Amino acid sequence: MARSPRAVDVPLVLDDSPAPLRHRVADAVVGALRTGRLRPGDTLPSTRSLAAALGVSRGPVVAAYDELAAAGFLRSRAGSGAVVAPGADTAARAGAATHVPETGRVRPPSPEPVPAAPRLDLRPGRPDTSLLDRAAWRRAWRAVGDALPGNDAGEVPRHTHLRRVLADHLRRGRGVVVDPDDLFVVPGVGASLRALPEAFGLVGASVALEDPGYVEAWTAFAAEGVRTHPVPVDADGLDPALLPDGARAVYVTPSHQYPLGARMPVTRRVALLEWARDTGGLVLEDDYDGEFRYDVSPLPALRSLPGAEDHVVYVGTASKLLAPSLRVAWVAAPAHLRDALRVTLESRGLVVNEATGLALAELVTSGALAAHHARASRTYAARRGALVTAVAEHLPGATLEGVDAGLHVVLRLPDDVDDHEVADRCHAAGVAVSPLSAYAVRTSVRGLVLCYAGLPETAADDAVRRLARALAP
Amino acid sequence: MARSPRAVDVPLVLDDSPAPLRHRVADAVVGALRTGRLRPGDTLPSTRSLAAALGVSRGPVVAAYDELAAAGFLRSRAGSGAVVAPGADTAARAGAATHVPETGRVRPPSPEPVPAAPRLDLRPGRPDTSLLDRAAWRRAWRAVGDALPGNDAGEVPRHTHLRRVLADHLRRGRGVVVDPDDLFVVPGVGASLRALPEAFGLVGASVALEDPGYVEAWTAFAAEGVRTHPVPVDADGLDPALLPDGARAVYVTPSHQYPLGARMPVTRRVALLEWARDTGGLVLEDDYDGEFRYDVSPLPALRSLPGAEDHVVYVGTASKLLAPSLRVAWVAAPAHLRDALRVTLESRGLVVNEATGLALAELVTSGALAAHHARASRTYAARRGALVTAVAEHLPGATLEGVDAGLHVVLRLPDDVDDHEVADRCHAAGVAVSPLSAYAVRTSVRGLVLCYAGLPETAADDAVRRLARALAP
Repeated sequence: MARSPRAVDVPLVLDDSPAPLRHRVADAVVGALRTGRLRPGDTLPSTRSLAAALGVSRGPVVAAYDELAAAGFLRSRAGSGAVVAPGADTAARAGAATHVPETGRVRPPSPEPVPAAPRLDLRPGRPDTSLLDRAAWRRAWRAVGDALPGNDAGEVPRHTHLRRVLADHLRRGRGVVVDPDDLFVVPGVGASLRALPEAFGLVGASVALEDPGYVEAWTAFAAEGVRTHPVPVDADGLDPALLPDGARAVYVTPSHQYPLGARMPVTRRVALLEWARDTGGLVLEDDYDGEFRYDVSPLPALRSLPGAEDHVVYVGTASKLLAPSLRVAWVAAPAHLRDALRVTLESRGLVVNEATGLALAELVTSGALAAHHARASRTYAARRGALVTAVAEHLPGATLEGVDAGLHVVLRLPDDVDDHEVADRCHAAGVAVSPLSAYAVRTSVRGLVLCYAGLPETAADDAVRRLARALAP
Repeated sequence: MARSPRAVDVPLVLDDSPAPLRHRVADAVVGALRTGRLRPGDTLPSTRSLAAALGVSRGPVVAAYDELAAAGFLRSRAGSGAVVAPGADTAARAGAATHVPETGRVRPPSPEPVPAAPRLDLRPGRPDTSLLDRAAWRRAWRAVGDALPGNDAGEVPRHTHLRRVLADHLRRGRGVVVDPDDLFVVPGVGASLRALPEAFGLVGASVALEDPGYVEAWTAFAAEGVRTHPVPVDADGLDPALLPDGARAVYVTPSHQYPLGARMPVTRRVALLEWARDTGGLVLEDDYDGEFRYDVSPLPALRSLPGAEDHVVYVGTASKLLAPSLRVAWVAAPAHLRDALRVTLESRGLVVNEATGLALAELVTSGALAAHHARASRTYAARRGALVTAVAEHLPGATLEGVDAGLHVVLRLPDDVDDHEVADRCHAAGVAVSPLSAYAVRTSVRGLVLCYAGLPETAADDAVRRLARALAP
């Protein structure tokens, strides 16, 4: 991501104020100056990279940079990006802003029409939680209400029962054999990835990541001082032969490459494991939606290969399987890294509370999770089928990738198309989608990422008609 | 804490294996070497400091250091602490250990009698969760089960309703007026303190802390690169006149100094606020058990003073009020620091999931929290009374401190007593207590910290008789 040695990779998060997007982007930069995460002389990411990282279109980011330059926070140097101006941090701390902040909750009448929220949301990461068996969900939380809560402030919840049943679930569903003692219940994948560099001694080390890939992983590792190296992916996912010399770890999504959707063939899996054995490197396997596959033979997790247990850190999540709002994921660590991971997770507060662990354990033990998975798989398969059919009809000649597994597909676009602009047009046409280039670091890819998990079969035709209109030249 | 420039402040956490404590301490050091958090040439903390930080007695730590030195991981230099030996990191990574690790779950028959778990646990941080109204607790989680969980993986739970009702609760109970937009729901105090230095630009800056004080705060700030400065406390808590020059922030527990129990008088509160105004410093107010007070007039939070809203970061928790296992706390930030705090909390995953937020909101809205607080206050007042009476009877001449508020008292011991040893004797006599010196950094204090929250009135006499026996010379 960072091309010059002084370019910075500050995680900027937009606030949820009703202010215009360009103001919120500018505010985020000023906020980073105020807290010292950005300093004079730092080079900001390109507008394209920042837009991608924030998941917004590029226009407001360009406007925000203009606003920041006009207010004296940035100096734009042609050809080398925007540089933070001397004194910008002091100005920010003194309360300077690029615009008059909105006070109170009364908003002035806006002359511009606010674009309507899209009718259909196809952005990835959104399973259909309405498919849950409401009775089973109720029973799970009733179990929490029936238990007297623990009273020891010094105690970290051990989730002994949950780890045992999760280990069994992983063995049956993903072929992963793990000692419950090596399994950690963590509050979601994105944030927990931040603990891995410290726990595994990767701070300052080189770690390879898929390009295009999971932006949150890039951000998490960069924030922890990891030197990130993009490795391009092809139709078979990441090619181990392309791993850079000196890489100490590699982050991969072999079950359904994020976002392109490739399933890594077993030859590459074995080669990746050989790389780990030969170099002592660590494979970080993110199995984010590995539970869902269609019309293809099961391909167990990379971690299930013989000998993988010493070299592969397996990460799974309840986000797709149940609901992202649970914020529960799990990490299976090699036994020799277990203690280090525990220390880091606990000291960073990356633990799941007792109540959430109890509810999840109840869902697994009662069989509700397995039943939900079977039911949701059938529904998602039908929705995927309806989307694929509609694309074939309304977008003849279009190529869909990643259809074999997971909950989303990728519609490729020609290299000269601005897919952020296309995504904006789709949004205006009532369908929210993610531009593929938002996931790219160095590779040039264009397309739309379409998650069908929440798209009813009856709505697929309407959705793709709208996409086709937005894509029409 | 660090006295020489090379001394390190590595947060070591013990695993929960059944191995002897000295092995677990040694394992924690070897684990830190393995992950690079400790390096050759680093000076380890003194055995006393480490024992204090881990909340264990000093004997096992001394034994662990001996074990580590014998195995070649440490070189002990007389008078200057133990230094990590060259090559120790490589040895650790190669799997070297100081002892034969226990394999499997079968433990060899032990010739030594295992000390029985104490009958009565008076260590602080343990409210009596059995006082909860079980019906209200069930209703709270039923509300979670009745709601369809959110499905957006990219969305951080906003807890809009909870923040509104919490703001109202803080206004009524603690006099704290806060805009719900400036209130953050976080997963517990200890870990969330780690986010404050980055959010508030305190990394590398000087922050003053109470001595004796909350060890987790020291550890959290040190882990984030803060230069921590101990300030001794007296019967009125921290004296603002003793704040070191150049301090950019101060961490205080004005409602019930942790652990000594002083209530900071209003003159010092105003002086602290003046210090903040004059120097631009930040006051971090931890109101960890401010809801409980007895026979004394209410003293609202420091944050409730006029003008404090721009200078005081208020931290409260549900740990004492409800249950520590909920892992829910809240932070009220000055408005100009709100965005910075949000960015840091979110990027570190320090957020509470939707379900936990819903349950807590239900407990506040239904009035169950207020009813529980009233009921628990009466019970705790009676338990406090019984303990104070029993101490007067069986330990004549003993001084108890911190009796006006909170859930624990301090029994002072003479300066020449080893209170870790006394605590071990109490433990052997069936009563678990915490040695006061475990909370000290530079000051020399000796005593026992006794939490009466879980001590029934009928058991107070027995508990204090046991303490008296352990204290007898």
